Amino acid sequence: MNTDRILATYLLETPHPVEQAAAVIAGEQSSGTFVAVPGETPELKARFGAQIEAIELLDSVETPSLPGSRPPKGADAPPRYQRTKIVLSFPFENMGANLPTLAATVCGNLYELSDHSGLKLLDLELPEAFAAKYPGPQFGIEGTRRLCGVYDRPIIGTIVKPSVGLSPQQTAELVHELAEADIDFIKDDELMANPPHSPLPERVAAVMRVINDHADRTGKKIMYAFNISDDLDEMKRHHDTVLNAGGTCIMLSLNHVGFAAAAHVRRHSQLPIHGHRNGWGMLTRCPILGIAFPAYQKLWRLAGADHLHVNGLQNKFWEPDDSVLTSIRACLTPMFGGYLAMPVVSSGQWAGQAPETYRRTGTVDLMFLAGGGIMAHPGGPGAGVASIRQAWEAATQNVSLEEYARTHRPLREALEKFGKLRA
Amino acid sequence: MNTDRILATYLLETPHPVEQAAAVIAGEQSSGTFVAVPGETPELKARFGAQIEAIELLDSVETPSLPGSRPPKGADAPPRYQRTKIVLSFPFENMGANLPTLAATVCGNLYELSDHSGLKLLDLELPEAFAAKYPGPQFGIEGTRRLCGVYDRPIIGTIVKPSVGLSPQQTAELVHELAEADIDFIKDDELMANPPHSPLPERVAAVMRVINDHADRTGKKIMYAFNISDDLDEMKRHHDTVLNAGGTCIMLSLNHVGFAAAAHVRRHSQLPIHGHRNGWGMLTRCPILGIAFPAYQKLWRLAGADHLHVNGLQNKFWEPDDSVLTSIRACLTPMFGGYLAMPVVSSGQWAGQAPETYRRTGTVDLMFLAGGGIMAHPGGPGAGVASIRQAWEAATQNVSLEEYARTHRPLREALEKFGKLRA
Repeated sequence: MNTDRILATYLLETPHPVEQAAAVIAGEQSSGTFVAVPGETPELKARFGAQIEAIELLDSVETPSLPGSRPPKGADAPPRYQRTKIVLSFPFENMGANLPTLAATVCGNLYELSDHSGLKLLDLELPEAFAAKYPGPQFGIEGTRRLCGVYDRPIIGTIVKPSVGLSPQQTAELVHELAEADIDFIKDDELMANPPHSPLPERVAAVMRVINDHADRTGKKIMYAFNISDDLDEMKRHHDTVLNAGGTCIMLSLNHVGFAAAAHVRRHSQLPIHGHRNGWGMLTRCPILGIAFPAYQKLWRLAGADHLHVNGLQNKFWEPDDSVLTSIRACLTPMFGGYLAMPVVSSGQWAGQAPETYRRTGTVDLMFLAGGGIMAHPGGPGAGVASIRQAWEAATQNVSLEEYARTHRPLREALEKFGKLRA
Repeated sequence: MNTDRILATYLLETPHPVEQAAAVIAGEQSSGTFVAVPGETPELKARFGAQIEAIELLDSVETPSLPGSRPPKGADAPPRYQRTKIVLSFPFENMGANLPTLAATVCGNLYELSDHSGLKLLDLELPEAFAAKYPGPQFGIEGTRRLCGVYDRPIIGTIVKPSVGLSPQQTAELVHELAEADIDFIKDDELMANPPHSPLPERVAAVMRVINDHADRTGKKIMYAFNISDDLDEMKRHHDTVLNAGGTCIMLSLNHVGFAAAAHVRRHSQLPIHGHRNGWGMLTRCPILGIAFPAYQKLWRLAGADHLHVNGLQNKFWEPDDSVLTSIRACLTPMFGGYLAMPVVSSGQWAGQAPETYRRTGTVDLMFLAGGGIMAHPGGPGAGVASIRQAWEAATQNVSLEEYARTHRPLREALEKFGKLRA
């Protein structure tokens, strides 16, 4: 395979002969007008055109998944809609190491073509040339563990709730409670950035006072991901505020900050970037439109995200477990020989999901975030954190939660309360 | 209506009682965990919670549109999926004037909830407080007309094709040909930003030499939208390159550059921003997921886009005409008493669509872009441009194209060639 080409794998559904529909998609990425134009010579097409690398037929359906496709003209029978996996390749030379234009190429106008009734970008392979321009995750798994001082088990964390409305002082009080609970990691909610009722500088000051005091007393520095999502100058200023206060993480709402600003923050940053993917459902919940996580996370690792949200098993959201597992594995698969991002497991998590998460991923290299699973534990947040840590001990020792719970009260209480609630 | 709240209208499909599903969405934006947490007091909810402002029932369906919804437990009959228009409101105080966090609030995790089987953001109303922070489109319709010297008719333009592969010199030769054709506007393709075979500074130099010479000779300055989409420092540098060469427009791939960088470029820019929405199909082609253009374009006008792509009537893409017309009208509806963006009509356009576009929008305040419709005109590009200008003359004078074509040869040749092709 030519290493100077970008490989993009798509799920395609089309009423046309598959080769033809694939050629239209490839063509849209080279001339893209409805009649041949003079400058588009065969030589130019050969050098700069997108190429079809592979076609794998899947099933076919009677009804188009998306509106707006146009079946072939003059057919006798009603068309069937063939589903196919196709691999297209694009020359690196078409864009250079330019992340927004890479995205415009692999996730651009092609979704709008009427030659298909569904198109989803499944995966990407990028030439090394991108690594020369984009340094990728600065801290990744190893750097995050070093800052947290947590090894050989998941980093256990929680989200500040309520998402909005808490003052800096109230947030700091909650952080104090969580510090006493021996938490590893805390994050702002994605709805909470720099609102009038909790200006980020004041929140950083109040929260870091608690975290720094706790570190001085115990030697353990809790990682707090401050949500700096905002306009660019504000994000850089907020990063500096967090850094200067001794903070160890910043958070971005990736989809809404965007590639160019995130990559810029990455170059400026001296802290890990906690990548929140809110809005992700819009890009992927339709089974045959948008982008799948294996492709998505590569673009964001290129932009420099150190942590990436992946939902969790039995989450409260729509996402099935298999999809979550694929996402966890994707973050842990090296790009350019490295660039690892730490998967952030969250949404409806408590101690109960630890065994299956471990059994099906074989890793402890993840963040495991619980909201109610910690805060609403009958023994209080300390018991909540302990219950999750105990569940992971059981999982990695291949002991059932029920057995481990016999000698571990926080886990037992978690099973009694949340096991019933979620059953 | 409280003017300090953001109003967001959604299309919702749910197997649950509608009030309940709407409340879950509203709740996800205030506490978002599966058990009540201690800090979420009724007072805090009243002040910071999202509220349901309106519910309008639509039809119901037997099959969920999207996967992953969970019907109510214990129901006897299989559930029906009720479609509804709901209006939620969010307090401005939750986010302040912070565009990425506004987007995280109205287009965030709510797409992932299992209480619904479909959610699309249809429209937004934003409090004036956003206008104080975001200056919006700097040039808009009036400023763009002034720079182009075109009034009382659409700005007629084209796209450089082939999208990739042309050298700066070849691009300049094409621009020369288009200048001779008396074109108003030319844009780079979204695939063509700053690639190794056509570095932007060289392309700007070569193209602007032609455009400036032409302006010196004729007094007419063609607006060329250089695609500066890239990382942030590069975009600012490229903007300056364009400005210093006497250029009058920059183009951004909005979705892939992102809100934060686009808003930053807007503050830096002394040129209109041509907003290309490639990737848009991913956000909207599923009828019950994502975001509809009336909401989308408001976010991008806030970020400062002066021109916004809207497809065109009888386009080559999937989008139906009614949707295109809604988009054109949306761009031309004032926000905060102004902030107008110029709709950019393109995709499969030629002279033929002018009458219906005019009849159904009543405006000439748009850019009308044709690729093949100009370049492949049998009389050459000059006749191609003339044919479109003549078609708009006919449209605004309420004369049929056929009649006008009797005395206007370029239009007649366009009807003969493209009328047949597209019939």
